[in-house]
Amino acid sequence: MGFGFEDGVEVQVGALLVLLTGAGAQGMEYDTPEVSAIKKDMANLAHQGHWKVVILRYTLLIAIGCTTGVTASLIDFLTTTICSIKFAFIQRCILLFELNWLKWAYLYSVPYYYELPVFNAHSSSWPVLRPASVWTLINCSFVLVAAILTVYSAPAAGGSGIPQIKCYLNGLNVPLILRARTMVVKGIGIVLSVCGGLVVGKEGPMVHIGSVIAAGFSQGRVRCFGLSSRCFRRFRRDAEKRDFVSAGAAAGVAAAFGAPVGGLLFTLEEGASFIFQRLTWNTLLASIFSMFTLVFSRSLIDGQPFKFTPGGLVSFGMFENVTSYNAYELMVFVLMGIIGGLLGALFVALNRVLSKYRQAYVKSQPAKIVDAVLIGAFTTVLSFAILISMSDCHSLFQKDTFEFHQIVCPNGEFNRAGTLFFAAPVKALNVLLHDPPQSFSNYTLFVFALYTFFIACITYGISVPCGLFIPSLLLGATWGRVIGELLYTFSPQNFPDPAKFALIGAAAQLGGIVRMIASLTVVLMEATGNVILGLPVLITLVPAKYVGDCLTEGIYDTHIALSGMALLPWEVNARCIQLCALDVMTSPVAVLDTVMPVRDVYHLVFNHPHHAFPVVEGDRDPNNFKYGRLIGMISAQHIALMIKKKIYYPLNGEDMPRLTADDFDDAYPRFYKLKDVLLNASDDEFDRSLDFRPYMNHAPYRVPLDMSMTRVFALFRRLGLRHLPVVDNSNQVRGMITRKDLCRFRFAPAGKVVERLFSRIY
Amino acid sequence: MGFGFEDGVEVQVGALLVLLTGAGAQGMEYDTPEVSAIKKDMANLAHQGHWKVVILRYTLLIAIGCTTGVTASLIDFLTTTICSIKFAFIQRCILLFELNWLKWAYLYSVPYYYELPVFNAHSSSWPVLRPASVWTLINCSFVLVAAILTVYSAPAAGGSGIPQIKCYLNGLNVPLILRARTMVVKGIGIVLSVCGGLVVGKEGPMVHIGSVIAAGFSQGRVRCFGLSSRCFRRFRRDAEKRDFVSAGAAAGVAAAFGAPVGGLLFTLEEGASFIFQRLTWNTLLASIFSMFTLVFSRSLIDGQPFKFTPGGLVSFGMFENVTSYNAYELMVFVLMGIIGGLLGALFVALNRVLSKYRQAYVKSQPAKIVDAVLIGAFTTVLSFAILISMSDCHSLFQKDTFEFHQIVCPNGEFNRAGTLFFAAPVKALNVLLHDPPQSFSNYTLFVFALYTFFIACITYGISVPCGLFIPSLLLGATWGRVIGELLYTFSPQNFPDPAKFALIGAAAQLGGIVRMIASLTVVLMEATGNVILGLPVLITLVPAKYVGDCLTEGIYDTHIALSGMALLPWEVNARCIQLCALDVMTSPVAVLDTVMPVRDVYHLVFNHPHHAFPVVEGDRDPNNFKYGRLIGMISAQHIALMIKKKIYYPLNGEDMPRLTADDFDDAYPRFYKLKDVLLNASDDEFDRSLDFRPYMNHAPYRVPLDMSMTRVFALFRRLGLRHLPVVDNSNQVRGMITRKDLCRFRFAPAGKVVERLFSRIY
Repeated sequence: MGFGFEDGVEVQVGALLVLLTGAGAQGMEYDTPEVSAIKKDMANLAHQGHWKVVILRYTLLIAIGCTTGVTASLIDFLTTTICSIKFAFIQRCILLFELNWLKWAYLYSVPYYYELPVFNAHSSSWPVLRPASVWTLINCSFVLVAAILTVYSAPAAGGSGIPQIKCYLNGLNVPLILRARTMVVKGIGIVLSVCGGLVVGKEGPMVHIGSVIAAGFSQGRVRCFGLSSRCFRRFRRDAEKRDFVSAGAAAGVAAAFGAPVGGLLFTLEEGASFIFQRLTWNTLLASIFSMFTLVFSRSLIDGQPFKFTPGGLVSFGMFENVTSYNAYELMVFVLMGIIGGLLGALFVALNRVLSKYRQAYVKSQPAKIVDAVLIGAFTTVLSFAILISMSDCHSLFQKDTFEFHQIVCPNGEFNRAGTLFFAAPVKALNVLLHDPPQSFSNYTLFVFALYTFFIACITYGISVPCGLFIPSLLLGATWGRVIGELLYTFSPQNFPDPAKFALIGAAAQLGGIVRMIASLTVVLMEATGNVILGLPVLITLVPAKYVGDCLTEGIYDTHIALSGMALLPWEVNARCIQLCALDVMTSPVAVLDTVMPVRDVYHLVFNHPHHAFPVVEGDRDPNNFKYGRLIGMISAQHIALMIKKKIYYPLNGEDMPRLTADDFDDAYPRFYKLKDVLLNASDDEFDRSLDFRPYMNHAPYRVPLDMSMTRVFALFRRLGLRHLPVVDNSNQVRGMITRKDLCRFRFAPAGKVVERLFSRIY
Repeated sequence: MGFGFEDGVEVQVGALLVLLTGAGAQGMEYDTPEVSAIKKDMANLAHQGHWKVVILRYTLLIAIGCTTGVTASLIDFLTTTICSIKFAFIQRCILLFELNWLKWAYLYSVPYYYELPVFNAHSSSWPVLRPASVWTLINCSFVLVAAILTVYSAPAAGGSGIPQIKCYLNGLNVPLILRARTMVVKGIGIVLSVCGGLVVGKEGPMVHIGSVIAAGFSQGRVRCFGLSSRCFRRFRRDAEKRDFVSAGAAAGVAAAFGAPVGGLLFTLEEGASFIFQRLTWNTLLASIFSMFTLVFSRSLIDGQPFKFTPGGLVSFGMFENVTSYNAYELMVFVLMGIIGGLLGALFVALNRVLSKYRQAYVKSQPAKIVDAVLIGAFTTVLSFAILISMSDCHSLFQKDTFEFHQIVCPNGEFNRAGTLFFAAPVKALNVLLHDPPQSFSNYTLFVFALYTFFIACITYGISVPCGLFIPSLLLGATWGRVIGELLYTFSPQNFPDPAKFALIGAAAQLGGIVRMIASLTVVLMEATGNVILGLPVLITLVPAKYVGDCLTEGIYDTHIALSGMALLPWEVNARCIQLCALDVMTSPVAVLDTVMPVRDVYHLVFNHPHHAFPVVEGDRDPNNFKYGRLIGMISAQHIALMIKKKIYYPLNGEDMPRLTADDFDDAYPRFYKLKDVLLNASDDEFDRSLDFRPYMNHAPYRVPLDMSMTRVFALFRRLGLRHLPVVDNSNQVRGMITRKDLCRFRFAPAGKVVERLFSRIY
């Protein structure tokens, strides 16, 4: 169907574009409830404990930062330790075969943080199959355990977690995403995925882990032990919890990249949908403490306590010497941004096809596990196969900085492909970003870029915790290096440093995939320790984002859309100014009277399973669009609480029972389900009546019928509403607007060709 | 008067606390007008030119950044050049007296960027009066010219400009603040003030200059040449202009401190009242280009084009070697934060008393000029007097890094006080931040801190352009150094580096005066090039802000309050949840009928000079609180435009005339004044009628009578409204809420002692 405009513009509201709130995801209410019990409690709290709240808030933020930092250190430590055990085991296995194969075992173990002794014998490559299969088996076991944990114990722990956190901060509560169990599985799972040799990063998952820590700490409640402190009552509201989660997400980024300001901007740009002044320094506090704790732990491990070196889980190495770039280079950077946007869009489109395939055919739990293990095995075997089929040999011209591998090369030479395919992704990235010109043959780089693109694309989406930052950076650094080497060959005067192009390529590729600008710029500035790099990175990221956005959505938004969740964008398309509330709203509306028998509520709820209902008084005649005058709104949760606590309209001689602020506090956030409560109600209770007036929001925001959608959206979005009643000029309820209604309208901007193409193919 | 609360809390709405919108400042409307002509135009623009707008926006942002950078370079260059001319002149003057005095002339000239030859003769200090008076005369002349320019040509150019820009971004248009003339006077004035030896910085004014550049560029209109391009129509709205001004302000900070991300956060934290995602990268783009242009200009001046060194107008020097701090130091940093907060509050309180005195007694233009010149003379004479009365002599133990002055010391020694009192503030700051332990006697530092505190306090507020960042940093670095030196004497193992304490002191003092956290942390991280310093700076700034806020408001908010402007805070005090719209609103309201004779409009407007009026229909009986049902709102500006363009209700046989989108565009932003238009209307016109329906906003946001003030405020603040009608449950207009009504409620938090004390003294 389509809505006709005066000037003939058509808005598509096709069946495919009607996004529904995904499986079980629930909207959140950021508006303060206007219930007198809660209001009075809040006023009392404000009066008694201004400083108590301030101190508690800052203590919590510091605790969140420190715990995130400690968790990051722990993940780092565990990755190293488990990999070393794996290495010891494989070494023993190899000794059982033949001593000759020891070389291969060593080589194969290099990705797992161990230095490689250089061997002297030049050997052929085929007799290595037996230790290689053991190795593959071990990798697959790690992936298997990670997949079993994820699939059976906490499915919400799969993937990077950033899309879900983004949804949460946008006002959609994805079930189980902020549970402690999810976090534990995520932490263990990411260690196993990395040790299992998958092309994944630990950085995205750190954002999720930081968020869960923040959500847990801020509520001051351990349900399984029945612990709950009233001091935290102030923070048990969706809006407060959201702000803590923002800070936790930033702390995660800070620990991942050693970039506290980058973390803040990540939250502001990508995550937080609601920004205000205090949030900036709260978030900065958590992220600085997170980075500081990680750095402090590292100084302890290094045996030099209080000697701090910047850097997070991934460090780019210092770029202090890059203090110059010329006009030619800047032009190339813009072009690289465009390439990054194109490749990023291709990546997203392919991954989207694959994810849709997985959604359709990889549904059962065992299938998901098999999927993950197969990808793990394929990664190991493919990298192995590519490596032994290549011999990009160089003489040893530098020994100090990076590792090198002889593999199938003659004595005194080493294999460049080994440096890429065998090293851990983070080390390979460092090599690409810092090695001198002409360290790599373009053929090796090209094959490595193809390999990374392909493997990263099929890996993102399997049911283990896996981040996308490191694979994207690695991919970009590789093709950036290719461009750098080509330009160096062309004109060493104008393009003296291919490593710089590797960095810009990494930025372009990451920007093309995740579509961030400000936060990536700052993260890269902080991770490289060089403010002068801000300009080149920024002018790369702007075209990368815009070119990418022409073709597809970013990877996170794509996955959010695939999971059927509806994110409210920052701004609505400018053309929506021609639509008005009447076009957007859902009508007719189920309304409640001020006093109603439970029986009637039962029928209403089962016919209209909404989350909130307008309360009306006066004339009602639905045939003439009269639903009564709006005097309030009440949420299903609060009705359920009333029935559960038996707050019925008093019979003769009874006192009026009352809900207290503590009742509301105890019910948060796992409210009773209204349907369940009604199904459990006795017949006696069905005859009683409910008086909604004391517990309804007696002053809901409302909009008139002819307000333009742009302004309806502004109200809904900026105030974080969940339901918005539409009234006419006599204040008669005429309709209701929810997140779902606003998300129905998606204007396809000109040029979303690739995505459409692929969706047609699929 | 007071409002009684249920629980006995009293809200003071005393006469002093009733803030009125200051002299001529006007609220701005960030809401999109729901006028069909404008809506249709916007939809057409959106349809035709999405990419045109994107490209135009980015081009403008880059142009704003580059122009701000060039302006900063120009100011730097002019300061240096003018001071060198001044030096040459004074040297010639001194030759006319006696050759002996040459030494003093040289000494005196050092603040103005020239190196000092070291003299050998030890001489007494009194016969230097004659060249000193010439010197004082020259300084005073500079200040005189700056003051005359400011007072007679552009009074809005006085001060740092940050409070006014803050007001602008909050939604209060301070008259003339964004005019080109103001910017030119500001630029020239700040050069003269710095050359005139005042204790002022160029950094605050750069924020103002960046904002004016942004406001000018974004409107695509040169009124004095009658140039105006329709392409910029999209940006001629208060909300769009505000976003450009945010970017300009950030570009100013970026150029001032070489801190592009700091600029972005400055805008987010202190300036921008409305934040959304695109704003972050737009702002970052402008600020990175601004810093890059400055750095590029400097590389050209240094003769090494494209060789970039970070740093803005002020550079802190690199702190790369500070990679360690221990737990003792961290504790001291927190204490220093508290001291910074206390001293900052004292500074603000004293400056407030002085500013009130100036407001009351220094009113006429000549008086303002005399005030400025006297402060200039006093600064010169006092620094001179202190210097010759001190002899803090040290042997020459370092020659390479910083300048040193013999003055009244024996041969082979130099005077530490000279390094502080004679060097330019920026150089003195560098010395304090980098010199080795025990370079200064504590007595010298103490006297210098007192001098800086006193002079900076009396200087801020005179009628010349003057920034407060550098004086605050200098003051903090001085007392920070005192603490550092004392601790070093106490325990050189635990506190090895007094320079670190100077940096923390500078942060604490600046934080205590301006009360920012996130942006100052990032600015200092970027200006020192050391991410490891983030934690100490942050844990200093948090207590500095909170301690300061207990005692007084920040310096900018104080000056905003003194000028009678009412800033909407980010959040309303939590206790306001007990108030409702009925308590806050202004009532009765002047309302308009849908069609009204001009004569009636005339009477209404002269009795109720508001900026907008509700349009109503239906029953009206003010005695029973009935003003008619709300069907729209129309602003005085639009009524004026209707009368000016003669859009009257058609008489028989006439066609209905119409306003077009171009009419609205031409009128922005200097709308006709409704009063003037009415006074100029002829008698014939007085008999005609106006039909408001096509030009009113037919769907204004509205709130019910019993909505709590917290939620009313959220709506008003987050949507950037100017007028908010209050209705009852029948949609009858009952009152109106404006910025003024919301600002009347100021809850005095416990402990605002100092400020109250001083206001009582005065």
